Amino acid sequence: MPRSVAGPEIERLIQLLARLPGLGPRSARRAALHLIRKKEALLAPLADAFAEARDSVKVCSNCGSVDTSDPCAICADATRDPSVLVVVEDVADLWALERAGAVNARYHVLGGTLSALDGRGPEDLNLAKLVERASDGLITEVILALNATVDGQTTAHYITDTLAKSGVKVTRLAHGVPVGGELDYLDEGTLSAAIRSRTPF
Amino acid sequence: MPRSVAGPEIERLIQLLARLPGLGPRSARRAALHLIRKKEALLAPLADAFAEARDSVKVCSNCGSVDTSDPCAICADATRDPSVLVVVEDVADLWALERAGAVNARYHVLGGTLSALDGRGPEDLNLAKLVERASDGLITEVILALNATVDGQTTAHYITDTLAKSGVKVTRLAHGVPVGGELDYLDEGTLSAAIRSRTPF
Repeated sequence: MPRSVAGPEIERLIQLLARLPGLGPRSARRAALHLIRKKEALLAPLADAFAEARDSVKVCSNCGSVDTSDPCAICADATRDPSVLVVVEDVADLWALERAGAVNARYHVLGGTLSALDGRGPEDLNLAKLVERASDGLITEVILALNATVDGQTTAHYITDTLAKSGVKVTRLAHGVPVGGELDYLDEGTLSAAIRSRTPF
Repeated sequence: MPRSVAGPEIERLIQLLARLPGLGPRSARRAALHLIRKKEALLAPLADAFAEARDSVKVCSNCGSVDTSDPCAICADATRDPSVLVVVEDVADLWALERAGAVNARYHVLGGTLSALDGRGPEDLNLAKLVERASDGLITEVILALNATVDGQTTAHYITDTLAKSGVKVTRLAHGVPVGGELDYLDEGTLSAAIRSRTPF
Protein backbone atom coordinates (compact mmCIF):
# COMPACT_ATOMS: atom_id res chain seq x y z
CA MET A 1 0.00 0.00 0.00
CA PRO A 2 1.43 3.38 -0.97
CA ARG A 3 2.08 5.96 1.70
CA SER A 4 -0.73 8.38 2.32
CA VAL A 5 0.32 11.61 0.65
CA ALA A 6 -2.03 14.11 2.24
CA GLY A 7 -4.28 14.60 5.23
CA PRO A 8 -7.11 12.10 5.82
CA GLU A 9 -9.72 14.66 4.71
CA ILE A 10 -8.01 15.02 1.32
CA GLU A 11 -7.48 11.26 0.98
CA ARG A 12 -11.17 10.64 1.70
CA LEU A 13 -12.24 13.21 -0.89
CA ILE A 14 -10.00 11.52 -3.47
CA GLN A 15 -11.37 8.07 -2.65
CA LEU A 16 -14.97 9.22 -2.98
CA LEU A 17 -14.31 11.18 -6.19
CA ALA A 18 -12.72 8.05 -7.68
CA ARG A 19 -16.11 6.32 -7.39
CA LEU A 20 -17.76 8.76 -9.79
CA PRO A 21 -18.31 7.37 -13.29
CA GLY A 22 -15.65 8.75 -15.62
CA LEU A 23 -13.08 9.30 -12.88
CA GLY A 24 -10.48 6.74 -11.82
CA PRO A 25 -7.97 6.99 -8.95
CA ARG A 26 -5.56 9.05 -11.03
CA SER A 27 -8.09 11.56 -12.36
CA ALA A 28 -9.71 11.77 -8.91
CA ARG A 29 -6.36 12.91 -7.51
CA ARG A 30 -6.06 15.43 -10.32
CA ALA A 31 -9.62 16.65 -9.68
CA ALA A 32 -9.03 16.94 -5.92
CA LEU A 33 -5.87 18.95 -6.47
CA HIS A 34 -7.69 21.20 -8.93
CA LEU A 35 -10.44 21.71 -6.33
CA ILE A 36 -7.95 22.53 -3.60
CA ARG A 37 -6.17 25.03 -5.83
CA LYS A 38 -9.46 26.73 -6.66
CA LYS A 39 -10.77 26.63 -3.14
CA GLU A 40 -12.95 29.74 -3.27
CA ALA A 41 -14.02 29.44 -6.89
CA LEU A 42 -14.80 25.73 -7.01
CA LEU A 43 -14.31 23.74 -3.79
CA ALA A 44 -16.52 25.92 -1.61
CA PRO A 45 -19.38 26.22 -4.15
CA LEU A 46 -19.24 22.46 -4.80
CA ALA A 47 -19.36 21.77 -1.07
CA ASP A 48 -22.53 23.87 -0.89
CA ALA A 49 -24.00 22.28 -4.02
CA PHE A 50 -23.39 18.80 -2.64
CA ALA A 51 -24.98 19.65 0.68
CA GLU A 52 -28.01 21.18 -1.05
CA ALA A 53 -28.41 18.24 -3.42
CA ARG A 54 -28.17 15.81 -0.51
CA ASP A 55 -30.87 17.70 1.38
CA SER A 56 -33.24 18.48 -1.46
CA VAL A 57 -33.19 15.70 -4.08
CA LYS A 58 -36.32 13.56 -4.16
CA VAL A 59 -37.70 10.80 -6.37
CA CYS A 60 -41.02 11.83 -7.93
CA SER A 61 -43.72 9.49 -6.61
CA ASN A 62 -45.68 9.95 -9.83
CA CYS A 63 -43.16 9.36 -12.63
CA GLY A 64 -40.03 8.06 -10.89
CA SER A 65 -37.80 10.94 -12.04
CA VAL A 66 -35.54 12.88 -9.68
CA ASP A 67 -36.04 16.52 -8.81
CA THR A 68 -36.07 18.79 -5.80
CA SER A 69 -39.86 18.63 -5.49
CA ASP A 70 -42.37 15.78 -5.39
CA PRO A 71 -44.25 15.70 -7.74
CA CYS A 72 -41.41 16.81 -9.98
CA ALA A 73 -41.53 20.05 -12.00
CA ILE A 74 -42.50 18.16 -15.16
CA CYS A 75 -45.40 16.28 -13.55
CA ALA A 76 -46.56 19.56 -11.96
CA ASP A 77 -46.29 21.48 -15.26
CA ALA A 78 -49.88 22.20 -16.38
CA THR A 79 -48.77 23.21 -19.89
CA ARG A 80 -47.76 19.66 -20.79
CA ASP A 81 -50.00 17.52 -23.00
CA PRO A 82 -51.96 15.29 -20.59
CA SER A 83 -52.87 12.79 -23.31
CA VAL A 84 -49.31 11.59 -23.99
CA LEU A 85 -46.99 9.64 -21.70
CA VAL A 86 -43.36 9.02 -22.68
CA VAL A 87 -41.83 5.88 -21.16
CA VAL A 88 -38.05 5.95 -20.63
CA GLU A 89 -35.63 3.51 -19.02
CA ASP A 90 -33.76 6.03 -17.02
CA VAL A 91 -33.67 9.63 -15.78
CA ALA A 92 -30.71 10.23 -18.13
CA ASP A 93 -32.95 9.41 -21.10
CA LEU A 94 -35.63 11.79 -19.79
CA TRP A 95 -33.01 14.54 -19.53
CA ALA A 96 -31.81 13.81 -23.07
CA LEU A 97 -35.37 14.14 -24.48
CA GLU A 98 -35.96 17.33 -22.47
CA ARG A 99 -32.70 18.86 -23.69
CA ALA A 100 -33.79 18.14 -27.25
CA GLY A 101 -37.22 19.64 -26.51
CA ALA A 102 -38.44 16.57 -28.39
CA VAL A 103 -41.87 16.32 -26.80
CA ASN A 104 -43.97 18.44 -24.46
CA ALA A 105 -45.57 15.69 -22.43
CA ARG A 106 -45.00 13.90 -19.16
CA TYR A 107 -42.69 10.96 -18.60
CA HIS A 108 -42.62 7.63 -16.83
CA VAL A 109 -39.22 6.36 -15.68
CA LEU A 110 -38.99 2.55 -15.55
CA GLY A 111 -35.70 2.47 -13.67
CA GLY A 112 -34.15 -0.09 -16.02
CA THR A 113 -35.15 -2.78 -18.48
CA LEU A 114 -36.20 -6.37 -18.23
CA SER A 115 -33.09 -8.50 -18.47
CA ALA A 116 -32.91 -12.28 -18.34
CA LEU A 117 -29.11 -12.10 -18.03
CA ASP A 118 -29.12 -9.67 -15.10
CA GLY A 119 -32.19 -11.31 -13.53
CA ARG A 120 -34.41 -8.22 -13.71
CA GLY A 121 -38.10 -9.12 -13.97
CA PRO A 122 -41.24 -6.95 -14.30
CA GLU A 123 -41.48 -6.58 -10.50
CA ASP A 124 -38.09 -4.80 -10.47
CA LEU A 125 -39.36 -2.01 -12.72
CA ASN A 126 -41.73 0.89 -12.05
CA LEU A 127 -44.48 -0.89 -14.06
CA ALA A 128 -47.51 -1.08 -11.77
CA LYS A 129 -47.57 2.71 -11.56
CA LEU A 130 -47.32 2.91 -15.37
CA VAL A 131 -50.40 0.72 -15.79
CA GLU A 132 -52.23 2.85 -13.23
CA ARG A 133 -51.28 6.10 -14.99
CA ALA A 134 -52.13 4.74 -18.44
CA SER A 135 -55.63 3.92 -17.15
CA ASP A 136 -56.37 7.43 -15.82
CA GLY A 137 -58.75 8.17 -18.71
CA LEU A 138 -56.73 11.19 -19.94
CA ILE A 139 -53.81 9.40 -21.56
CA THR A 140 -54.47 8.20 -25.09
CA GLU A 141 -50.92 7.50 -26.27
CA VAL A 142 -47.90 5.91 -24.60
CA ILE A 143 -44.63 6.54 -26.47
CA LEU A 144 -42.00 3.92 -25.68
CA ALA A 145 -38.73 5.87 -25.82
CA LEU A 146 -36.57 2.89 -24.89
CA ASN A 147 -33.05 2.18 -26.06
CA ALA A 148 -32.75 0.23 -29.30
CA THR A 149 -31.01 -2.62 -27.47
CA VAL A 150 -32.19 -6.21 -27.03
CA ASP A 151 -33.23 -5.54 -23.43
CA GLY A 152 -34.90 -2.27 -24.38
CA GLN A 153 -36.91 -3.89 -27.15
CA THR A 154 -37.84 -6.87 -24.94
CA THR A 155 -39.15 -4.39 -22.40
CA ALA A 156 -41.05 -2.52 -25.11
CA HIS A 157 -42.79 -5.72 -26.17
CA TYR A 158 -43.66 -6.56 -22.58
CA ILE A 159 -45.15 -3.10 -21.95
CA THR A 160 -47.12 -3.26 -25.22
CA ASP A 161 -48.65 -6.56 -24.08
CA THR A 162 -49.33 -5.24 -20.59
CA LEU A 163 -51.07 -2.11 -21.86
CA ALA A 164 -53.03 -3.93 -24.60
CA LYS A 165 -56.21 -4.14 -22.54
CA SER A 166 -56.06 -0.51 -21.38
CA GLY A 167 -57.00 0.72 -24.86
CA VAL A 168 -54.25 3.36 -25.15
CA LYS A 169 -52.22 3.62 -28.35
CA VAL A 170 -48.65 2.41 -27.85
CA THR A 171 -45.99 3.85 -30.19
CA ARG A 172 -42.21 3.64 -30.31
CA LEU A 173 -39.39 5.89 -31.56
CA ALA A 174 -38.55 5.74 -35.27
CA HIS A 175 -35.42 3.90 -36.35
CA GLY A 176 -33.27 5.54 -39.00
CA VAL A 177 -30.19 7.52 -39.89
CA PRO A 178 -29.14 9.91 -37.06
CA VAL A 179 -29.20 13.58 -38.13
CA GLY A 180 -25.65 14.37 -39.23
CA GLY A 181 -24.87 10.65 -39.51
CA GLU A 182 -22.84 9.20 -42.36
CA LEU A 183 -24.19 6.08 -44.02
CA ASP A 184 -20.72 4.59 -44.29
CA TYR A 185 -20.47 4.35 -40.50
CA LEU A 186 -23.95 2.94 -39.83
CA ASP A 187 -24.70 -0.70 -39.13
CA GLU A 188 -26.80 -2.84 -41.47
CA GLY A 189 -29.78 -2.94 -39.09
CA THR A 190 -30.10 0.84 -39.02
CA LEU A 191 -29.69 1.16 -42.79
CA SER A 192 -32.31 -1.53 -43.43
CA ALA A 193 -34.70 0.18 -41.00
CA ALA A 194 -34.08 3.55 -42.65
CA ILE A 195 -34.88 2.10 -46.08
CA ARG A 196 -38.02 0.34 -44.82
CA SER A 197 -39.29 3.54 -43.16
CA ARG A 198 -38.33 5.85 -46.04
CA THR A 199 -40.46 8.96 -46.44
CA PRO A 200 -41.44 11.04 -49.55
CA PHE A 201 -39.03 13.89 -50.23
CA MET B 1 -30.28 27.29 -24.76
CA PRO B 2 -31.66 23.89 -23.82
CA ARG B 3 -34.47 23.65 -21.33
CA SER B 4 -33.47 23.06 -17.75
CA VAL B 5 -34.16 19.42 -17.05
CA ALA B 6 -34.05 19.31 -13.27
CA GLY B 7 -34.32 21.50 -10.21
CA PRO B 8 -31.85 24.39 -9.83
CA GLU B 9 -29.94 22.55 -7.10
CA ILE B 10 -29.28 19.62 -9.46
CA GLU B 11 -28.42 21.91 -12.39
CA ARG B 12 -25.93 23.80 -10.25
CA LEU B 13 -24.28 20.57 -9.11
CA ILE B 14 -23.94 19.46 -12.74
CA GLN B 15 -22.46 22.82 -13.82
CA LEU B 16 -19.87 22.75 -11.04
CA LEU B 17 -18.97 19.09 -11.63
CA ALA B 18 -18.42 19.90 -15.31
CA ARG B 19 -15.59 22.22 -14.28
CA LEU B 20 -13.55 19.37 -12.80
CA PRO B 21 -10.66 18.21 -14.99
CA GLY B 22 -11.62 14.99 -16.75
CA LEU B 23 -15.36 15.71 -16.66
CA GLY B 24 -17.27 17.51 -19.40
CA PRO B 25 -20.94 18.55 -19.43
CA ARG B 26 -22.06 15.09 -20.49
CA SER B 27 -20.04 13.11 -17.97
CA ALA B 28 -20.94 15.66 -15.28
CA ARG B 29 -24.62 14.87 -15.88
CA ARG B 30 -23.85 11.18 -15.70
CA ALA B 31 -21.88 11.68 -12.49
CA ALA B 32 -24.67 13.78 -10.93
CA LEU B 33 -27.26 11.16 -11.76
CA HIS B 34 -25.03 8.45 -10.35
CA LEU B 35 -24.65 10.50 -7.16
CA ILE B 36 -28.40 11.06 -6.87
CA ARG B 37 -29.10 7.36 -7.34
CA LYS B 38 -26.56 6.47 -4.64
CA LYS B 39 -27.67 9.18 -2.28
CA GLU B 40 -26.79 7.47 0.99
CA ALA B 41 -23.71 5.60 -0.23
CA LEU B 42 -22.06 8.37 -2.24
CA LEU B 43 -23.82 11.76 -2.34
CA ALA B 44 -24.06 12.21 1.42
CA PRO B 45 -20.45 11.11 2.16
CA LEU B 46 -19.15 13.31 -0.68
CA ALA B 47 -21.12 16.27 0.65
CA ASP B 48 -19.42 15.75 4.02
CA ALA B 49 -15.99 15.23 2.44
CA PHE B 50 -16.33 18.44 0.43
CA ALA B 51 -17.38 20.43 3.47
CA GLU B 52 -14.47 19.03 5.47
CA ALA B 53 -11.95 19.68 2.71
CA ARG B 54 -13.25 23.24 2.31
CA ASP B 55 -12.87 23.87 6.03
CA SER B 56 -9.56 22.11 6.64
CA VAL B 57 -7.31 22.37 3.57
CA LYS B 58 -4.38 24.74 3.98
CA VAL B 59 -1.28 25.64 1.99
CA CYS B 60 1.88 24.85 3.95
CA SER B 61 3.69 28.13 4.64
CA ASN B 62 7.01 26.28 4.64
CA CYS B 63 6.98 24.16 1.47
CA GLY B 64 3.90 25.31 -0.48
CA SER B 65 2.22 21.89 -0.46
CA VAL B 66 -1.41 21.41 0.56
CA ASP B 67 -2.51 19.54 3.64
CA THR B 68 -4.92 19.88 6.52
CA SER B 69 -2.26 21.28 8.82
CA ASP B 70 0.31 24.08 8.52
CA PRO B 71 3.17 23.16 8.51
CA CYS B 72 2.13 20.11 6.53
CA ALA B 73 2.62 16.55 7.81
CA ILE B 74 5.77 16.12 5.71
CA CYS B 75 7.43 19.33 6.95
CA ALA B 76 6.47 18.34 10.51
CA ASP B 77 7.81 14.77 10.13
CA ALA B 78 10.98 14.57 12.25
CA THR B 79 12.05 11.27 10.65
CA ARG B 80 12.79 12.93 7.30
CA ASP B 81 16.36 13.66 6.25
CA PRO B 82 16.92 17.37 7.07
CA SER B 83 19.91 17.64 4.74
CA VAL B 84 18.00 17.03 1.50
CA LEU B 85 15.35 19.22 -0.15
CA VAL B 86 13.40 17.98 -3.19
CA VAL B 87 12.14 20.75 -5.48
CA VAL B 88 8.96 19.94 -7.48
CA GLU B 89 6.83 22.01 -9.81
CA ASP B 90 3.54 20.99 -8.38
CA VAL B 91 1.78 19.22 -5.50
CA ALA B 92 0.85 16.44 -7.94
CA ASP B 93 4.57 15.74 -8.48
CA LEU B 94 5.13 15.68 -4.71
CA TRP B 95 2.31 13.16 -4.35
CA ALA B 96 3.78 11.02 -7.16
CA LEU B 97 7.21 10.91 -5.45
CA GLU B 98 5.60 10.12 -2.09
CA ARG B 99 3.52 7.31 -3.60
CA ALA B 100 6.71 5.85 -5.02
CA GLY B 101 8.43 6.23 -1.64
CA ALA B 102 11.29 7.54 -3.76
CA VAL B 103 12.94 9.72 -1.15
CA ASN B 104 12.52 10.32 2.56
CA ALA B 105 13.17 14.05 2.63
CA ARG B 106 11.21 17.28 2.60
CA TYR B 107 9.89 19.06 -0.47
CA HIS B 108 9.59 22.52 -1.92
CA VAL B 109 6.69 23.21 -4.28
CA LEU B 110 7.42 25.91 -6.86
CA GLY B 111 3.84 26.24 -8.06
CA GLY B 112 4.81 26.07 -11.72
CA THR B 113 7.77 26.65 -14.00
CA LEU B 114 9.32 29.65 -15.63
CA SER B 115 7.70 30.11 -19.00
CA ALA B 116 8.46 32.82 -21.53
CA LEU B 117 5.41 31.79 -23.56
CA ASP B 118 2.99 31.97 -20.64
CA GLY B 119 4.71 35.03 -19.18
CA ARG B 120 5.69 33.39 -15.87
CA GLY B 121 8.84 34.87 -14.37
CA PRO B 122 10.82 34.07 -11.19
CA GLU B 123 8.55 36.34 -9.09
CA ASP B 124 5.55 34.13 -9.94
CA LEU B 125 7.16 31.07 -8.37
CA ASN B 126 7.75 30.13 -4.73
CA LEU B 127 11.50 30.88 -5.14
CA ALA B 128 12.41 33.36 -2.41
CA LYS B 129 11.34 30.86 0.23
CA LEU B 130 13.45 28.18 -1.51
CA VAL B 131 16.59 30.33 -1.29
CA GLU B 132 15.80 31.00 2.36
CA ARG B 133 15.34 27.30 3.13
CA ALA B 134 18.48 26.28 1.21
CA SER B 135 20.48 28.70 3.35
CA ASP B 136 19.30 27.29 6.70
CA GLY B 137 22.65 25.57 7.31
CA LEU B 138 21.11 22.06 7.54
CA ILE B 139 20.41 21.46 3.88
CA THR B 140 23.37 20.20 1.89
CA GLU B 141 21.64 18.91 -1.26
CA VAL B 142 18.78 20.25 -3.37
CA ILE B 143 17.32 17.65 -5.75
CA LEU B 144 15.57 19.25 -8.73
CA ALA B 145 12.70 16.84 -9.47
CA LEU B 146 11.31 18.92 -12.32
CA ASN B 147 9.58 17.66 -15.42
CA ALA B 148 11.87 16.84 -18.36
CA THR B 149 10.19 19.55 -20.45
CA VAL B 150 11.72 22.70 -21.91
CA ASP B 151 10.10 24.86 -19.20
CA GLY B 152 11.10 22.39 -16.49
CA GLN B 153 14.71 22.36 -17.60
CA THR B 154 14.80 26.16 -17.99
CA THR B 155 13.58 26.43 -14.42
CA ALA B 156 16.18 23.88 -13.28
CA HIS B 157 18.97 25.99 -14.82
CA TYR B 158 17.62 29.16 -13.22
CA ILE B 159 17.45 27.55 -9.77
CA THR B 160 20.96 26.12 -10.15
CA ASP B 161 22.27 29.62 -10.89
CA THR B 162 20.27 31.14 -8.04
CA LEU B 163 21.56 28.60 -5.51
CA ALA B 164 25.18 28.70 -6.76
CA LYS B 165 26.34 31.09 -4.06
CA SER B 166 24.55 29.23 -1.22
CA GLY B 167 27.06 26.37 -1.46
CA VAL B 168 24.51 23.53 -1.47
CA LYS B 169 24.90 20.69 -3.96
CA VAL B 170 22.23 20.84 -6.68
CA THR B 171 21.33 17.55 -8.40
CA ARG B 172 18.66 16.53 -10.87
CA LEU B 173 16.76 13.33 -11.63
CA ALA B 174 18.49 10.80 -13.90
CA HIS B 175 17.34 10.50 -17.49
CA GLY B 176 17.00 7.00 -18.89
CA VAL B 177 14.76 4.12 -19.87
CA PRO B 178 11.61 3.97 -17.68
CA VAL B 179 11.35 0.71 -15.72
CA GLY B 180 9.23 -1.62 -17.85
CA GLY B 181 9.80 0.58 -20.88
CA GLU B 182 10.49 -0.81 -24.34
CA LEU B 183 13.37 0.73 -26.28
CA ASP B 184 11.38 0.57 -29.50
CA TYR B 185 8.88 3.11 -28.15
CA LEU B 186 11.37 5.57 -26.66
CA ASP B 187 12.45 8.81 -28.26
CA GLU B 188 16.03 9.44 -29.44
CA GLY B 189 16.75 11.92 -26.62
CA THR B 190 15.93 9.41 -23.92
CA LEU B 191 17.91 6.64 -25.61
CA SER B 192 20.96 8.88 -26.06
CA ALA B 193 20.75 9.95 -22.41
CA ALA B 194 20.44 6.32 -21.30
CA ILE B 195 23.56 5.38 -23.29
CA ARG B 196 25.54 8.37 -21.99
CA SER B 197 24.61 7.56 -18.37
CA ARG B 198 25.12 3.80 -18.71
CA THR B 199 26.11 2.00 -15.52
CA PRO B 200 28.25 -1.12 -14.91
CA PHE B 201 26.18 -4.32 -14.79
